Amino acid sequence: MMKTYEINSLTNEKIKSWTKLHQSKYRRETGLFLAEGEHLIQEALKAGLVETLIVLKDSPIEFDVDVRVEVTPEVLHKLCQTESNSECIAVCRLWDQPASLGDRVLLLDQIQDPGNVGTIIRTAHSFGYDCVVLSENSVDLTNEKVLRASQGAIFHLPVIQREMKSAIEECRKNGLMILGTGLKHSIPLSAIPDCDNVAIILGNEGQGVRPEILHLCDAIVKIEINGFESLNVAVASGILCYRFRKP
Amino acid sequence: MMKTYEINSLTNEKIKSWTKLHQSKYRRETGLFLAEGEHLIQEALKAGLVETLIVLKDSPIEFDVDVRVEVTPEVLHKLCQTESNSECIAVCRLWDQPASLGDRVLLLDQIQDPGNVGTIIRTAHSFGYDCVVLSENSVDLTNEKVLRASQGAIFHLPVIQREMKSAIEECRKNGLMILGTGLKHSIPLSAIPDCDNVAIILGNEGQGVRPEILHLCDAIVKIEINGFESLNVAVASGILCYRFRKP
Repeated sequence: MMKTYEINSLTNEKIKSWTKLHQSKYRRETGLFLAEGEHLIQEALKAGLVETLIVLKDSPIEFDVDVRVEVTPEVLHKLCQTESNSECIAVCRLWDQPASLGDRVLLLDQIQDPGNVGTIIRTAHSFGYDCVVLSENSVDLTNEKVLRASQGAIFHLPVIQREMKSAIEECRKNGLMILGTGLKHSIPLSAIPDCDNVAIILGNEGQGVRPEILHLCDAIVKIEINGFESLNVAVASGILCYRFRKP
Repeated sequence: MMKTYEINSLTNEKIKSWTKLHQSKYRRETGLFLAEGEHLIQEALKAGLVETLIVLKDSPIEFDVDVRVEVTPEVLHKLCQTESNSECIAVCRLWDQPASLGDRVLLLDQIQDPGNVGTIIRTAHSFGYDCVVLSENSVDLTNEKVLRASQGAIFHLPVIQREMKSAIEECRKNGLMILGTGLKHSIPLSAIPDCDNVAIILGNEGQGVRPEILHLCDAIVKIEINGFESLNVAVASGILCYRFRKP
């Protein structure tokens, strides 16, 4: 049975506490986050993560949820962070940690740009990766822009935040080939043998993968580009994930 | 000899006319556009496109330009469109049209997102492409976000706006293999033979390449992904440009 109620006041305690979820600190404390817009909510529902659906009063939007809250445009506006006129937002529970990282893992070393991280998660999912790991000092994984750029893919493969060295150690124990990305002492991508068990490490656009992390890799790979140009990190993730995709 | 002068007034005629360059209509009429921030200006300078450099009064920024205008923070703020605190902006001349599109061409069919278009231009440059063509109904090529996402690559390979069918016709005359991207009647990327003369057509994220454009292609290629997912168009451009890169 769906429970439905109305909130009309901006100072309602529930609205105040949900608004705090714009801050990563509160998301971590509560294990909750906000997903905005119909498409993202649909994807979160498929993953069983939606706790409360919040919609405009008299909205025709229907989702199969336990709790539906109808609010005024002012209240919805306070909860939403994007400029677009979303008609709904959902309070969601953070997904569980996976028991294992799996056989195809993408590790992101201190990547801060939420759009890039979301796009990379979408890419990893498209090529059948088992897990995406965000290192220490990365953007928060339930950042609104990460969710949006992932187009909901973030709800369909495990994406976790974890200390990079311990994640690499687990990948090594599981017999994965650990591939860093960089220029120094690197091997061109086309010269790397095919491999079905691989952990690929991508770095922050400014600094790349940290040297102490590259030391832990089986090989450092470079994408063969023309001259001294550089690639956007999400574009690089596409080339690497495609090469080592799940058949 | 560098000519230097000061402008302190927001209502100065020059400032008013430069501010109009925020609109694509005025950029097209005048053949001028604005490049913001030190990195972009440096790249525009290398390409010989800078007409006037505008900096904050007493700024230590030095560039080898013909005309340097020093302005107040208010005037600079009026000219700049990004949120970041740029200390300089340049009025630039639009680059010339190339005599030929070349042997490796990337064609963008009605792509509107300026960040994607800029990233795709950067990617095409990194893989040695000769030209990027933006079709009718694409984002304007001197849009500020296109310039920024291209990281200046847009000044180093010809990027032009042109009717798609006439661009494809020229590519065919030049003996290029014309590859569309899509799902229907498509061939997996790994089954397409290597080729040194190629025109790749990417479509808008919502609709893909228009059917009437796909009809003109020698083959339709699909990137082998897992299930029914989709890729960000800039990520797709990376996988395709890498595959058909300049050695």
